[in-house]
Amino acid sequence: MKRLTGTNEEISKILYQEQLELSKENLDVEATVREIIERVKEEGDEALRAYSKQFDQVELSNLQVSDQVIDQAFDKIDKDVLTALQNAKANIESYHRQQLEAGFEDRPTEGVIRGQLIRPIERVGVYVPGGTAAYPSSVLMNVIPAKIAGVKEIIMITPPQKEFVPAILVAAKLAGVDKIYQVGGAQGIAALAYGTESIPKVDKITGPGNIFVATAKKQVFGLVGIDMIAGPSEIGVIADQTANPIFVAADLLSQAEHDKLARAILVTNSETLADAVGAEIEKQLQTLPRQEIARASIENNGRIIIAEDVDGMFDLMNQVAPEHLEVAMENAYDYLDKIENAGSIFLGHYTSEPIGDYYAGANHVLPTTATSRFSSALGVHDFIKRIQYTQYSKVAVNAAEKDITTLAYAEGLQAHARAIEVRNDQN
Amino acid sequence: MKRLTGTNEEISKILYQEQLELSKENLDVEATVREIIERVKEEGDEALRAYSKQFDQVELSNLQVSDQVIDQAFDKIDKDVLTALQNAKANIESYHRQQLEAGFEDRPTEGVIRGQLIRPIERVGVYVPGGTAAYPSSVLMNVIPAKIAGVKEIIMITPPQKEFVPAILVAAKLAGVDKIYQVGGAQGIAALAYGTESIPKVDKITGPGNIFVATAKKQVFGLVGIDMIAGPSEIGVIADQTANPIFVAADLLSQAEHDKLARAILVTNSETLADAVGAEIEKQLQTLPRQEIARASIENNGRIIIAEDVDGMFDLMNQVAPEHLEVAMENAYDYLDKIENAGSIFLGHYTSEPIGDYYAGANHVLPTTATSRFSSALGVHDFIKRIQYTQYSKVAVNAAEKDITTLAYAEGLQAHARAIEVRNDQN
Repeated sequence: MKRLTGTNEEISKILYQEQLELSKENLDVEATVREIIERVKEEGDEALRAYSKQFDQVELSNLQVSDQVIDQAFDKIDKDVLTALQNAKANIESYHRQQLEAGFEDRPTEGVIRGQLIRPIERVGVYVPGGTAAYPSSVLMNVIPAKIAGVKEIIMITPPQKEFVPAILVAAKLAGVDKIYQVGGAQGIAALAYGTESIPKVDKITGPGNIFVATAKKQVFGLVGIDMIAGPSEIGVIADQTANPIFVAADLLSQAEHDKLARAILVTNSETLADAVGAEIEKQLQTLPRQEIARASIENNGRIIIAEDVDGMFDLMNQVAPEHLEVAMENAYDYLDKIENAGSIFLGHYTSEPIGDYYAGANHVLPTTATSRFSSALGVHDFIKRIQYTQYSKVAVNAAEKDITTLAYAEGLQAHARAIEVRNDQN
Repeated sequence: MKRLTGTNEEISKILYQEQLELSKENLDVEATVREIIERVKEEGDEALRAYSKQFDQVELSNLQVSDQVIDQAFDKIDKDVLTALQNAKANIESYHRQQLEAGFEDRPTEGVIRGQLIRPIERVGVYVPGGTAAYPSSVLMNVIPAKIAGVKEIIMITPPQKEFVPAILVAAKLAGVDKIYQVGGAQGIAALAYGTESIPKVDKITGPGNIFVATAKKQVFGLVGIDMIAGPSEIGVIADQTANPIFVAADLLSQAEHDKLARAILVTNSETLADAVGAEIEKQLQTLPRQEIARASIENNGRIIIAEDVDGMFDLMNQVAPEHLEVAMENAYDYLDKIENAGSIFLGHYTSEPIGDYYAGANHVLPTTATSRFSSALGVHDFIKRIQYTQYSKVAVNAAEKDITTLAYAEGLQAHARAIEVRNDQN
């Protein structure tokens, strides 16, 4: 792992530059994706079938995955996996139910009512990658919050496969997906955004995907809502001398194995720990099945930073704004106040980040590439709308007339003023 | 106003196609904006000065608007305008304070803590258009929710002017803006996203602007947060036979005067009312100072739709998903349950939409072009982050080990499993 040294200011500049590099756009992909979207918009299902043949080498008859195929998945699934999915589902549900919000209403003066309604989004599309990136846990994490929010119809799309991973279909069914279609890539996103003969258009699209999927989501954003533009996975670990280097190394590697572009950053105030973690990473890498990926990630994007003191560790990590943040310290809970930016926090020596990936209940769809500065984990709030409402009586609008028309005339918007004035018999 | 007839299904298809047209991208603008952003990123303040000269015909010495200039604005402002801004501010504050949300925490089983922190975004940039589109009310609407959320620094940018509209600077100061810079257009958005020598980079950008500003916001989205891609303003009015055609016409025109692309849509179950509103619009247009703009909007984008019954009116309007929605009916409040999609609702015959534009307290930064299907008025929630946290004790992680490692192995992520296993002395 590369060591960064310098003042907090210097280090945070370097990390920021690295983040900018990671978030660079790929203009070639943009043009390709734009073409794909345009064709799906024009040709609908026919385009989807053509792209399936071209990109997935699959000739599709039905775009929709049948109930029979889904039922078979329940027969095929390993029983331990089924139990684990059921337990994870219960935890994810109980965590996310706490995010449900109520509307409000006040009646601040005579004749005035103001309020806010909470309404679920009507139809949501969830993208689930295919192949080795088909994660049943992601299905639960995307679908359950939508379901709790009250979304009326949840559509899942996933690239066509010779045989679907049973756990994907089972997770979809457990979580409450209404329909599953086998279509992937930018063409799948286009289908969800514009609708085709088979696939209904949705109001919002969530879920992870490769660069084509991410670019397509960015391009249809505005026409439909999207969750976020996810980058490579990241883990930041704040560790002091009380941390166990075996645990820290294992946790850094658990992110590194995701992707060669994944980013593992250790900030510590202990040189001894830094050395021990470095050695332990090398040792654990030796026997890791995904060694090649994890090693590339660690060597290219792994960083060890020595901070002067505890505040320095948190200051720096707030600037990194990592997707996952572990606080490997005694009494980690007491340091929550120092954290300003992170997607999801894991406190103490035993809260290994995979607990959150799979199980504890907090969401694992998290803001990457420093976007936790301004955005949050996927949650129930992403599947609702807040609708404002206002009611003024005749007396109330007449009383407010002078202020409102003064502002309207000041802005040169006379029709705005007149709409108020016509409500007053005196005018 | 053009009349649309047909079944609800047919009409909603037509309206949807019209919405798609309105949300089309302009590829020429995209390329231009990309260049501008790139240059600001490379050259910083120098690029901002060059663009000011080129686009605004202003040679800038200081980019920051001085305290002296702001103080002078307080001397120059009309006292009635000042009073109106102060009263509007109080209403906007009392409405938005109700949006503040608390975190949560639960301890579902022994050794497990789960929670969610609420943290304000650290630094926000607010764009305020120049010239005739410089609206002090928009300054209040963008800044006050950020301030209530607890944002630490609020930066406002606005195109350079020979002389600033005093109410803009006064509104900024009243609402709590920390620094004002005179820079507009795509170059201003680039400065906020990347920072320059003078202008600090922000975490999120909000505020309305022309096509260059909107395109720039879309391009920097991901690096920073943005509020929304706002299209032309819209009003939808649901009116039955109890509505006053003079009021309805005045309200439709109050949106139409904004912009030739503005969209005013009346849905009614009364032919009589439809005719009367049409006639009244023509009459009121005659004496309207912004007649040319309002007439173009009404003629090109105005729509009158006759629905069969009350449910039909609401069904159709839910598909339009208008930015502003007036319910011009007796007992309008009782129909709130029928509304699924809208930015802001105005209930009853006296709640003219400009009450909300300026005064009542709900936000006037609203989702346009049917985006209220998946997004909401600007509010306090747009300026906070929800940060998840989890803590598992040794006992708790050991108890969950089988489920977690089962899922990790099923997904082929061995390092994830190992990170859990190393916490267990039994392994």
